[in-house]
Amino acid sequence: MASPALIRSLARYVPVLDWGRTYNRDNLTNDLVAAVIVTIMLVPQSLAYALLAGLPAEMGIYASIVPIILYAIFGTSRALAVGPVAVVSLMTAAAIGKVAAPGSPEYITAALTLAFLSGAFLLGMGFLRLGFLANFLSHPVIAGFITASGVLIATSQIKHILGIKVSGDTMPEMLEGIFTHLGDTNLITLVIGVSATAFLFWVRKGLRPLLIRAGLGKRLTDIGTKAGPVAAVVVTTLVVWLFGLADYGVRVVGEVPQSLPPLTMPSFSPDLWGSLIGSAILLSVIGFVESISVAQTLAAKKRQRITPDQELIGLGAANIGAAFTGGYPVTGGFSRSVVNYDAGAETPAAGAYTAVGLAFAALLLTPLIYFLPQATLAATIIVAVLSLVDFSILPKTWAYSKSDFAAVSATIVLTLLFGVEAGVSAGVALSILIHLFKTSRPHMAVVGQVPGSEHFRNVLRHEVVTQPEILTLRVDESLYFANARFLEDKVYDMVASRPDLKHVILMCPAVNAIDMSALESLEAINERLRDLGVTFHLSEVKGPVMDRLKTSDFLHHLTGRVFLSQHQAIAELKPTQAA
Amino acid sequence: MASPALIRSLARYVPVLDWGRTYNRDNLTNDLVAAVIVTIMLVPQSLAYALLAGLPAEMGIYASIVPIILYAIFGTSRALAVGPVAVVSLMTAAAIGKVAAPGSPEYITAALTLAFLSGAFLLGMGFLRLGFLANFLSHPVIAGFITASGVLIATSQIKHILGIKVSGDTMPEMLEGIFTHLGDTNLITLVIGVSATAFLFWVRKGLRPLLIRAGLGKRLTDIGTKAGPVAAVVVTTLVVWLFGLADYGVRVVGEVPQSLPPLTMPSFSPDLWGSLIGSAILLSVIGFVESISVAQTLAAKKRQRITPDQELIGLGAANIGAAFTGGYPVTGGFSRSVVNYDAGAETPAAGAYTAVGLAFAALLLTPLIYFLPQATLAATIIVAVLSLVDFSILPKTWAYSKSDFAAVSATIVLTLLFGVEAGVSAGVALSILIHLFKTSRPHMAVVGQVPGSEHFRNVLRHEVVTQPEILTLRVDESLYFANARFLEDKVYDMVASRPDLKHVILMCPAVNAIDMSALESLEAINERLRDLGVTFHLSEVKGPVMDRLKTSDFLHHLTGRVFLSQHQAIAELKPTQAA
Repeated sequence: MASPALIRSLARYVPVLDWGRTYNRDNLTNDLVAAVIVTIMLVPQSLAYALLAGLPAEMGIYASIVPIILYAIFGTSRALAVGPVAVVSLMTAAAIGKVAAPGSPEYITAALTLAFLSGAFLLGMGFLRLGFLANFLSHPVIAGFITASGVLIATSQIKHILGIKVSGDTMPEMLEGIFTHLGDTNLITLVIGVSATAFLFWVRKGLRPLLIRAGLGKRLTDIGTKAGPVAAVVVTTLVVWLFGLADYGVRVVGEVPQSLPPLTMPSFSPDLWGSLIGSAILLSVIGFVESISVAQTLAAKKRQRITPDQELIGLGAANIGAAFTGGYPVTGGFSRSVVNYDAGAETPAAGAYTAVGLAFAALLLTPLIYFLPQATLAATIIVAVLSLVDFSILPKTWAYSKSDFAAVSATIVLTLLFGVEAGVSAGVALSILIHLFKTSRPHMAVVGQVPGSEHFRNVLRHEVVTQPEILTLRVDESLYFANARFLEDKVYDMVASRPDLKHVILMCPAVNAIDMSALESLEAINERLRDLGVTFHLSEVKGPVMDRLKTSDFLHHLTGRVFLSQHQAIAELKPTQAA
Repeated sequence: MASPALIRSLARYVPVLDWGRTYNRDNLTNDLVAAVIVTIMLVPQSLAYALLAGLPAEMGIYASIVPIILYAIFGTSRALAVGPVAVVSLMTAAAIGKVAAPGSPEYITAALTLAFLSGAFLLGMGFLRLGFLANFLSHPVIAGFITASGVLIATSQIKHILGIKVSGDTMPEMLEGIFTHLGDTNLITLVIGVSATAFLFWVRKGLRPLLIRAGLGKRLTDIGTKAGPVAAVVVTTLVVWLFGLADYGVRVVGEVPQSLPPLTMPSFSPDLWGSLIGSAILLSVIGFVESISVAQTLAAKKRQRITPDQELIGLGAANIGAAFTGGYPVTGGFSRSVVNYDAGAETPAAGAYTAVGLAFAALLLTPLIYFLPQATLAATIIVAVLSLVDFSILPKTWAYSKSDFAAVSATIVLTLLFGVEAGVSAGVALSILIHLFKTSRPHMAVVGQVPGSEHFRNVLRHEVVTQPEILTLRVDESLYFANARFLEDKVYDMVASRPDLKHVILMCPAVNAIDMSALESLEAINERLRDLGVTFHLSEVKGPVMDRLKTSDFLHHLTGRVFLSQHQAIAELKPTQAA
């Protein structure tokens, strides 16, 4: 038997060793029920997302089997369901569409390779403990990106509802294509597509109250509403088969191999890697952010903890698994995870049971979906992604912060106009630039003493006492390269307009750091003021900042002093007056 | 006569209207003398830098004529000398080398177009008042970049000293080329190159004391030392001519057209613009930063002010001028400006007189430089750029800040290995990432009350009083997307280990801003703590931050209160005890 200490240390990287030891019958029952519900929901969804990525339908199912099991072993979330998701499928299509034509064997190899690169990148980030990097994405930018992607995805499915051929992956391309080919609409496809969409919307909104009124228990109601897509699939497939509608131009899924996930190999061509690595990183980061948000939301409800670095390893393993078993990039999906959680999943084992269910589906059910119309799958996607679309982030940021609003609206517009990769890259770059911009012109206030107190406040906001020969400037920001020159300019301007000046005090209670650029600016200010016969002082410098300054020779050159408190500075520098 | 008010408002964009009105005879004399000295220095330097950019020698002179005049009209620095400079010439070679072969007419068109795009970009930035953007470059990164460029440039000239052909613009390529072709060394070229280099070093270090000892005045000494390169040019040209060394394989400048700057047209091909625009932006920003540093250094010595946005317009006009008069990208150069300043230039008119001098040179002297050996020009460049090389930034940053050191050393290594564009891009990206990284894990301290005072200090550093049911956390950083999640995690971790907790106070005296992402995190913390039965308070929130919070509905949902001071918070939340 392995020693408990060994298990504990292994359990850090393999969480299954942790929850697996206390697994009991109650867990088993709850996990099994959740697995049944999720499996029912996943079969049509997996087929649909593969279609969205431009891949053969069965790859969607394969991508849900081995990855789920690997995540169950290595992931930390107890409710997260890993598999193909809408946004990542769309990003996959955008990425591999650049290197191969949809339908070609190269396209499939590119998808496997993308999953492999994404998995390797996630694993690398996890081992290097770089999970915090995902925090560099601003929340509003992600919200805007998800919303715009939802709109893009829904639009991309309209062609399947109309039964026409449209290429392009940006809003203008797709809309132009749809309007150009509107005349080619296949009416039977349109009827099937619209009915399926309407039915699925009704299942979402109207079925649940009906079932509850009918006296079904919560669990049966859940299964009933989750089975909506399955019902749509079964009914429309039967209709197409019975009436031979495929002969009337209704596009169907067609032959799907009847097999367990096959063993596949990603490509190791450096050229292909070079073309895909950028997309793989973008897709991994977006997938990781989506996944970890879901995982943290669900964990919070049960006071469980998610470890971001371990999540990277779980998702990385899942994607590597997808690459070798006929799948494509996967991540933790919002809707499937919520369903899993609501259905009562208690441990990652629920995911493993789901995988078994899907394996049976891949082995036994695939011949039955030959006549499944693509329009039905499109309807499934449309209804699923429209829940992602939430423009409320726009008024919310508009009210709170115009700069966040600018970043969000740029992300949305660019995603719609130029596609997912351009949109999210621009959003990230813009939120960083805006942050730099805001901190590059820090708030600075000339301060004076509140009479009869030791407090110093902004001369513009308060009645305070100042001396003509002393200028105290409070900087409300850390000093670093982006604002170093601004500080210099500000000080020179102020000094130029005060001829009686003898002392300048820089009050630093909100200066949390001074980098090398800012240090050079302080040195320049010190020198310039010395030439003008003005001494330069600092006050209320924080401990860590002071420690850092002591490692440079700035303090030796400083013409003035560093005062612990502003009060002390004024008391010592103020010219003595007749009492 | 124009009204004074009109002139004043025009003078904002056309500074010549300002200093031009008070121009007098003293100014004229001083400016003329400076112009003579600078012209003597500029003739060989301009030829040499054109060579460095891979362009015909005369383009270096053309680039110094009209641009100087345009800068004199629109620029704000009184001593800045605009023209070809080493780093920008190297960047020009790197940029246009990607779209055309050196020596081809397309190569020249690309250089003109690059100057045009650079000028348009600078003008645009100036009109939009975006001069502050240059501040986003960290000082150490620029210092490292300039040093690495100096090394690259000096290395690139070795081939001319040896008289061999070497291609490539990165350190490994050049070194490999030099060692491969070392056997082809032309010994006569080598002798000329090494003698010229040694002579120029001696002029720089040894001649000045000699001339002073010989009793020459300061001004004559200046002219004497500045004339060093001219002497080298004259002597080596004569030697090559007299002994017919060109027939022995000594490469010479050859035929240079005898003409004033010709009227030229940049290309308006969208394809070419697309290929060059990125390089144009990079080169403009680097050129602008170099120029403004020089201008500000010199202005500071005379208590003059430089207006960055107007400098952009001055440099933009100069580059547009270069594009239409046979030049290539220009900027304010360090060495020529310092010479101009030291020689006593008082107004930008000195630049205009220099332009006249160079126009005479272009018209009259060009036939005389047919036999000028390229090795002499290479020697001029080597001696000039080695003064840019200063590795002291490495130990300086190592001592003060390891993260600045990382950015600088990466910039230097990448510039040497992969060229100027890769190096400076990586340096900028890295300094931004490092800044985000540092602010993403802000310093946070649990604080308690210093007994008998209203002060609150870090419990780890001071003897303070705390209550088991109150946790006060002071955050020493603005809250924004990069650290929002970190704050959440930290609070949850701390709460998890304190079972008796009833109140969490976030103390915000150093929080200068809260962006939308951070607001969402505060909302999440508030909700999570509410579920745990803990109330969430803020204290010492700054005025502007509070104003912003009031525009959201966060304060309505907040379970606790916002206290003006931490003292008040503790006084009101502390459970009342028996006295």
